[in-house]
Amino acid sequence: MDMEQVNAMDFGDFVDVFGNVIERCPLVAAAVWSQRPFADPGDLEARFCAFLDALPQAGQEGILRCHPDLAGRELQRGTLTAESQREQRAAGLQGLGAAERDRLALLNAQYRARFGFPFVLAARLRDPASVARELERRLRCSPAQELRTALGEVKTIGRLRLADLLGTEPARL
Amino acid sequence: MDMEQVNAMDFGDFVDVFGNVIERCPLVAAAVWSQRPFADPGDLEARFCAFLDALPQAGQEGILRCHPDLAGRELQRGTLTAESQREQRAAGLQGLGAAERDRLALLNAQYRARFGFPFVLAARLRDPASVARELERRLRCSPAQELRTALGEVKTIGRLRLADLLGTEPARL
Repeated sequence: MDMEQVNAMDFGDFVDVFGNVIERCPLVAAAVWSQRPFADPGDLEARFCAFLDALPQAGQEGILRCHPDLAGRELQRGTLTAESQREQRAAGLQGLGAAERDRLALLNAQYRARFGFPFVLAARLRDPASVARELERRLRCSPAQELRTALGEVKTIGRLRLADLLGTEPARL
Repeated sequence: MDMEQVNAMDFGDFVDVFGNVIERCPLVAAAVWSQRPFADPGDLEARFCAFLDALPQAGQEGILRCHPDLAGRELQRGTLTAESQREQRAAGLQGLGAAERDRLALLNAQYRARFGFPFVLAARLRDPASVARELERRLRCSPAQELRTALGEVKTIGRLRLADLLGTEPARL
Protein backbone atom coordinates (compact mmCIF):
# COMPACT_ATOMS: atom_id res chain seq x y z
CA MET A 1 0.00 0.00 0.00
CA ASP A 2 1.54 3.37 -0.98
CA MET A 3 0.82 6.76 0.56
CA GLU A 4 -1.23 7.87 -2.43
CA GLN A 5 -3.67 5.04 -1.76
CA VAL A 6 -3.70 5.85 1.97
CA ASN A 7 -4.36 9.54 1.33
CA ALA A 8 -7.24 8.71 -1.04
CA MET A 9 -9.13 6.66 1.59
CA ASP A 10 -12.41 7.93 3.01
CA PHE A 11 -12.62 7.72 6.81
CA GLY A 12 -14.56 4.46 6.72
CA ASP A 13 -11.87 2.66 4.72
CA PHE A 14 -9.10 4.29 6.76
CA VAL A 15 -10.60 3.08 10.05
CA ASP A 16 -11.21 -0.39 8.57
CA VAL A 17 -7.50 -0.64 7.67
CA PHE A 18 -5.79 1.25 10.53
CA GLY A 19 -8.41 0.95 13.30
CA ASN A 20 -6.37 -1.51 15.37
CA VAL A 21 -2.94 0.13 15.01
CA ILE A 22 -3.72 1.21 18.58
CA GLU A 23 -5.23 -1.86 20.22
CA ARG A 24 -9.05 -1.69 20.40
CA CYS A 25 -8.97 2.11 19.98
CA PRO A 26 -10.29 2.81 16.43
CA LEU A 27 -10.94 6.32 17.73
CA VAL A 28 -7.22 7.06 17.31
CA ALA A 29 -7.12 6.14 13.59
CA ALA A 30 -10.44 7.94 13.14
CA ALA A 31 -8.88 11.08 14.65
CA VAL A 32 -5.59 10.77 12.73
CA TRP A 33 -7.55 10.76 9.44
CA SER A 34 -8.18 14.49 10.08
CA GLN A 35 -4.43 15.11 9.56
CA ARG A 36 -4.23 13.75 5.98
CA PRO A 37 -2.54 13.99 3.52
CA PHE A 38 0.41 12.10 5.01
CA ALA A 39 3.84 12.77 3.48
CA ASP A 40 5.21 9.26 4.04
CA PRO A 41 4.93 6.29 6.44
CA GLY A 42 7.04 8.12 9.05
CA ASP A 43 4.62 11.04 8.98
CA LEU A 44 1.65 8.69 9.48
CA GLU A 45 3.46 7.03 12.43
CA ALA A 46 4.21 10.43 13.92
CA ARG A 47 0.54 11.44 13.74
CA PHE A 48 -0.54 8.36 15.71
CA CYS A 49 2.15 9.07 18.33
CA ALA A 50 1.28 12.77 18.54
CA PHE A 51 -2.36 11.93 19.19
CA LEU A 52 -1.38 9.66 22.11
CA ASP A 53 0.97 12.32 23.53
CA ALA A 54 -1.76 14.99 23.38
CA LEU A 55 -4.26 12.96 25.44
CA PRO A 56 -4.80 13.90 29.07
CA GLN A 57 -3.29 11.39 31.51
CA ALA A 58 -6.62 9.62 32.08
CA GLY A 59 -6.90 9.17 28.31
CA GLN A 60 -3.43 7.64 28.11
CA GLU A 61 -4.36 5.29 30.96
CA GLY A 62 -7.56 4.51 29.03
CA ILE A 63 -5.50 3.51 25.97
CA LEU A 64 -3.48 1.11 28.14
CA ARG A 65 -6.66 -0.37 29.68
CA CYS A 66 -7.87 -1.39 26.22
CA HIS A 67 -4.91 -3.82 25.97
CA PRO A 68 -5.19 -7.50 26.94
CA ASP A 69 -2.93 -9.24 29.45
CA LEU A 70 0.05 -11.08 27.98
CA ALA A 71 -0.52 -14.87 28.24
CA GLY A 72 -3.87 -14.11 29.88
CA ARG A 73 -7.41 -15.47 29.65
CA GLU A 74 -8.05 -13.93 26.24
CA LEU A 75 -5.14 -15.82 24.72
CA GLN A 76 -6.53 -19.05 26.22
CA ARG A 77 -10.05 -18.31 25.01
CA GLY A 78 -9.06 -17.11 21.54
CA THR A 79 -10.77 -13.72 22.00
CA LEU A 80 -7.69 -11.56 21.29
CA THR A 81 -7.65 -9.24 18.28
CA ALA A 82 -5.88 -10.84 15.28
CA GLU A 83 -2.89 -8.51 15.77
CA SER A 84 -2.50 -9.31 19.48
CA GLN A 85 -2.79 -13.01 18.86
CA ARG A 86 -0.02 -12.89 16.23
CA GLU A 87 2.22 -10.88 18.57
CA GLN A 88 1.66 -13.13 21.61
CA ARG A 89 2.29 -16.19 19.45
CA ALA A 90 5.49 -14.65 18.08
CA ALA A 91 6.71 -14.26 21.68
CA GLY A 92 6.00 -17.96 22.32
CA LEU A 93 3.32 -17.14 24.90
CA GLN A 94 0.86 -19.67 23.48
CA GLY A 95 3.12 -22.60 24.28
CA LEU A 96 3.65 -21.89 28.00
CA GLY A 97 3.28 -24.63 30.60
CA ALA A 98 0.74 -24.22 33.41
CA ALA A 99 3.40 -23.13 35.92
CA GLU A 100 4.80 -20.37 33.68
CA ARG A 101 1.27 -19.23 32.81
CA ASP A 102 0.27 -19.08 36.49
CA ARG A 103 3.42 -17.13 37.31
CA LEU A 104 2.70 -14.53 34.58
CA ALA A 105 -0.95 -14.33 35.70
CA LEU A 106 0.19 -13.53 39.25
CA LEU A 107 2.66 -10.87 38.05
CA ASN A 108 0.04 -9.37 35.72
CA ALA A 109 -2.43 -9.13 38.63
CA GLN A 110 0.18 -7.46 40.85
CA TYR A 111 0.97 -5.01 38.05
CA ARG A 112 -2.70 -4.13 37.46
CA ALA A 113 -3.26 -3.65 41.19
CA ARG A 114 -0.19 -1.37 41.50
CA PHE A 115 -0.69 0.82 38.40
CA GLY A 116 -4.40 0.59 37.49
CA PHE A 117 -3.69 -0.59 33.93
CA PRO A 118 -2.42 -3.83 32.39
CA PHE A 119 1.22 -4.60 31.63
CA VAL A 120 1.78 -3.58 27.99
CA LEU A 121 4.85 -4.73 26.07
CA ALA A 122 5.73 -5.05 22.37
CA ALA A 123 5.66 -8.83 22.78
CA ARG A 124 6.83 -9.90 19.36
CA LEU A 125 10.28 -8.51 20.10
CA ARG A 126 10.47 -10.84 23.15
CA ASP A 127 10.51 -14.44 24.35
CA PRO A 128 8.67 -15.78 27.44
CA ALA A 129 11.67 -15.46 29.78
CA SER A 130 12.27 -11.84 28.83
CA VAL A 131 8.54 -11.01 29.17
CA ALA A 132 8.59 -12.27 32.77
CA ARG A 133 11.87 -10.49 33.55
CA GLU A 134 10.59 -7.20 32.13
CA LEU A 135 7.33 -7.50 34.06
CA GLU A 136 9.25 -8.01 37.32
CA ARG A 137 11.52 -5.06 36.55
CA ARG A 138 8.68 -2.69 35.66
CA LEU A 139 6.65 -3.71 38.73
CA ARG A 140 9.30 -1.86 40.76
CA CYS A 141 9.10 1.40 38.75
CA SER A 142 7.27 4.53 39.89
CA PRO A 143 3.72 5.08 38.52
CA ALA A 144 4.76 8.20 36.55
CA GLN A 145 7.77 6.42 35.01
CA GLU A 146 5.68 3.35 34.24
CA LEU A 147 2.97 5.35 32.45
CA ARG A 148 5.69 6.78 30.17
CA THR A 149 7.26 3.37 29.56
CA ALA A 150 3.93 1.71 28.83
CA LEU A 151 2.92 4.47 26.40
CA GLY A 152 6.25 3.99 24.63
CA GLU A 153 5.39 0.29 24.22
CA VAL A 154 1.98 1.22 22.76
CA LYS A 155 3.82 3.36 20.20
CA THR A 156 6.26 0.56 19.34
CA ILE A 157 3.37 -1.89 18.88
CA GLY A 158 1.63 0.70 16.68
CA ARG A 159 4.75 1.29 14.56
CA LEU A 160 5.18 -2.43 13.96
CA ARG A 161 1.50 -2.82 13.04
CA LEU A 162 1.66 0.18 10.68
CA ALA A 163 4.79 -1.23 9.03
CA ASP A 164 2.97 -4.55 8.51
CA LEU A 165 0.01 -2.79 6.91
CA LEU A 166 2.13 -0.54 4.69
CA GLY A 167 4.70 -3.20 3.82
CA THR A 168 7.54 -0.99 5.07
CA GLU A 169 10.18 -1.07 7.78
CA PRO A 170 9.13 0.84 10.92
CA ALA A 171 10.81 4.27 10.89
CA ARG A 172 12.26 3.83 14.38
CA LEU A 173 11.86 1.62 17.43
CA MET B 1 -26.91 -1.13 39.65
CA ASP B 2 -26.06 1.39 42.40
CA MET B 3 -23.02 3.66 42.60
CA GLU B 4 -21.39 1.54 45.29
CA GLN B 5 -21.30 -1.37 42.85
CA VAL B 6 -20.01 0.88 40.07
CA ASN B 7 -17.26 2.31 42.27
CA ALA B 8 -16.15 -1.18 43.31
CA MET B 9 -15.56 -2.34 39.72
CA ASP B 10 -12.05 -3.03 38.47
CA PHE B 11 -11.27 -1.46 35.09
CA GLY B 12 -11.97 -4.68 33.19
CA ASP B 13 -15.53 -4.96 34.56
CA PHE B 14 -16.09 -1.21 34.16
CA VAL B 15 -15.13 -1.31 30.47
CA ASP B 16 -17.23 -4.45 29.94
CA VAL B 17 -20.29 -2.63 31.31
CA PHE B 18 -19.75 0.98 30.14
CA GLY B 19 -17.47 0.43 27.11
CA ASN B 20 -20.16 1.33 24.55
CA VAL B 21 -21.69 4.33 26.32
CA ILE B 22 -19.71 6.18 23.66
CA GLU B 23 -20.26 4.20 20.47
CA ARG B 24 -17.30 1.91 19.65
CA CYS B 25 -14.98 3.98 21.87
CA PRO B 26 -14.25 1.83 24.97
CA LEU B 27 -11.25 4.10 25.44
CA VAL B 28 -13.60 6.73 26.89
CA ALA B 29 -14.99 4.46 29.63
CA ALA B 30 -11.47 3.15 30.24
CA ALA B 31 -10.29 6.75 30.78
CA VAL B 32 -13.30 7.76 32.91
CA TRP B 33 -12.52 4.89 35.32
CA SER B 34 -9.51 6.97 36.46
CA GLN B 35 -11.96 9.53 37.95
CA ARG B 36 -13.71 7.13 40.36
CA PRO B 37 -15.28 7.17 42.91
CA PHE B 38 -18.37 8.71 41.31
CA ALA B 39 -20.76 10.56 43.61
CA ASP B 40 -23.94 9.67 41.72
CA PRO B 41 -25.18 8.90 38.17
CA GLY B 42 -25.03 12.59 37.26
CA ASP B 43 -21.37 12.72 38.26
CA LEU B 44 -20.61 9.67 36.11
CA GLU B 45 -22.42 11.28 33.15
CA ALA B 46 -20.49 14.50 33.67
CA ARG B 47 -17.17 12.62 33.58
CA PHE B 48 -17.98 11.07 30.21
CA CYS B 49 -18.98 14.49 28.84
CA ALA B 50 -15.89 16.20 30.29
CA PHE B 51 -13.64 13.66 28.60
CA LEU B 52 -15.25 14.39 25.22
CA ASP B 53 -14.98 18.15 25.75
CA ALA B 54 -11.27 17.88 26.64
CA LEU B 55 -10.34 16.06 23.41
CA PRO B 56 -8.61 18.03 20.66
CA GLN B 57 -10.86 18.71 17.65
CA ALA B 58 -9.44 15.77 15.66
CA GLY B 59 -10.29 13.50 18.60
CA GLN B 60 -13.87 14.77 18.71
CA GLU B 61 -14.13 14.17 14.96
CA GLY B 62 -12.68 10.69 15.61
CA ILE B 63 -15.44 9.97 18.13
CA LEU B 64 -18.05 10.92 15.51
CA ARG B 65 -16.37 8.73 12.85
CA CYS B 66 -16.82 5.67 15.08
CA HIS B 67 -20.62 6.06 14.70
CA PRO B 68 -22.61 4.18 12.03
CA ASP B 69 -24.91 5.84 9.49
CA LEU B 70 -28.59 5.98 10.45
CA ALA B 71 -30.55 3.52 8.28
CA GLY B 72 -27.27 2.58 6.58
CA ARG B 73 -25.61 -0.63 5.43
CA GLU B 74 -24.82 -1.79 8.95
CA LEU B 75 -28.50 -1.74 9.90
CA GLN B 76 -29.26 -3.82 6.78
CA ARG B 77 -26.42 -6.26 7.48
CA GLY B 78 -27.08 -6.61 11.21
CA THR B 79 -23.54 -5.49 12.13
CA LEU B 80 -24.53 -2.57 14.38
CA THR B 81 -23.67 -2.64 18.08
CA ALA B 82 -26.59 -3.87 20.20
CA GLU B 83 -27.18 -0.34 21.51
CA SER B 84 -27.24 1.25 18.03
CA GLN B 85 -29.55 -1.42 16.72
CA ARG B 86 -32.02 -0.82 19.54
CA GLU B 87 -31.90 2.94 18.97
CA GLN B 88 -32.36 2.74 15.19
CA ARG B 89 -35.25 0.29 15.66
CA ALA B 90 -36.86 2.63 18.22
CA ALA B 91 -36.79 5.38 15.58
CA GLY B 92 -38.52 3.06 13.11
CA LEU B 93 -35.52 3.05 10.77
CA GLN B 94 -35.65 -0.72 10.28
CA GLY B 95 -39.06 -0.57 8.62
CA LEU B 96 -38.23 1.97 5.90
CA GLY B 97 -39.22 1.37 2.28
CA ALA B 98 -36.53 1.34 -0.42
CA ALA B 99 -37.28 4.92 -1.52
CA GLU B 100 -36.96 6.35 2.01
CA ARG B 101 -33.80 4.32 2.60
CA ASP B 102 -32.24 5.55 -0.65
CA ARG B 103 -33.15 9.12 0.21
CA LEU B 104 -31.46 8.86 3.66
CA ALA B 105 -28.42 7.15 2.09
CA LEU B 106 -28.03 10.08 -0.32
CA LEU B 107 -28.37 12.66 2.47
CA ASN B 108 -25.92 10.72 4.67
CA ALA B 109 -23.37 10.65 1.83
CA GLN B 110 -23.77 14.41 1.25
CA TYR B 111 -23.32 15.00 4.98
CA ARG B 112 -20.16 12.85 5.18
CA ALA B 113 -18.69 14.59 2.13
CA ARG B 114 -19.42 18.05 3.57
CA PHE B 115 -18.25 17.52 7.18
CA GLY B 116 -15.85 14.53 7.11
CA PHE B 117 -17.84 12.58 9.72
CA PRO B 118 -21.18 10.76 9.71
CA PHE B 119 -24.52 12.30 10.70
CA VAL B 120 -24.98 11.50 14.41
CA LEU B 121 -28.36 11.89 16.09
CA ALA B 122 -29.94 10.49 19.26
CA ALA B 123 -32.26 8.41 17.06
CA ARG B 124 -34.49 6.89 19.69
CA LEU B 125 -36.00 10.30 20.41
CA ARG B 126 -37.04 10.54 16.72
CA ASP B 127 -39.17 9.03 13.96
CA PRO B 128 -38.06 8.54 10.32
CA ALA B 129 -39.59 11.79 9.07
CA SER B 130 -37.88 13.85 11.76
CA VAL B 131 -34.52 12.09 11.13
CA ALA B 132 -34.65 13.12 7.46
CA ARG B 133 -35.78 16.67 8.31
CA GLU B 134 -32.99 17.08 10.87
CA LEU B 135 -30.40 15.73 8.42
CA GLU B 136 -31.50 18.26 5.78
CA ARG B 137 -31.42 21.08 8.32
CA ARG B 138 -27.97 20.20 9.65
CA LEU B 139 -26.52 19.77 6.16
CA ARG B 140 -26.88 23.56 5.82
CA CYS B 141 -25.01 24.38 9.08
CA SER B 142 -21.41 25.58 9.27
CA PRO B 143 -18.71 22.94 10.01
CA ALA B 144 -17.85 24.48 13.40
CA GLN B 145 -21.50 24.66 14.45
CA GLU B 146 -22.11 21.12 13.21
CA LEU B 147 -19.19 19.67 15.17
CA ARG B 148 -20.71 21.17 18.34
CA THR B 149 -24.21 19.90 17.52
CA ALA B 150 -22.96 16.40 16.68
CA LEU B 151 -20.93 16.19 19.89
CA GLY B 152 -24.04 17.21 21.82
CA GLU B 153 -25.87 14.28 20.21
CA VAL B 154 -23.06 11.92 21.23
CA LYS B 155 -23.53 13.12 24.82
CA THR B 156 -27.31 12.65 24.66
CA ILE B 157 -26.86 9.11 23.31
CA GLY B 158 -24.34 8.44 26.09
CA ARG B 159 -26.67 9.79 28.80
CA LEU B 160 -29.51 7.59 27.59
CA ARG B 161 -27.25 4.52 27.47
CA LEU B 162 -25.89 5.24 30.96
CA ALA B 163 -29.43 5.65 32.30
CA ASP B 164 -30.35 2.26 30.76
CA LEU B 165 -27.35 0.61 32.40
CA LEU B 166 -27.90 2.22 35.80
CA GLY B 167 -31.69 1.91 35.76
CA THR B 168 -32.09 5.67 36.32
CA GLU B 169 -33.56 8.64 34.49
CA PRO B 170 -30.93 10.59 32.52
CA ALA B 171 -29.96 13.69 34.55
CA ARG B 172 -30.62 16.07 31.63
CA LEU B 173 -31.13 15.98 27.88
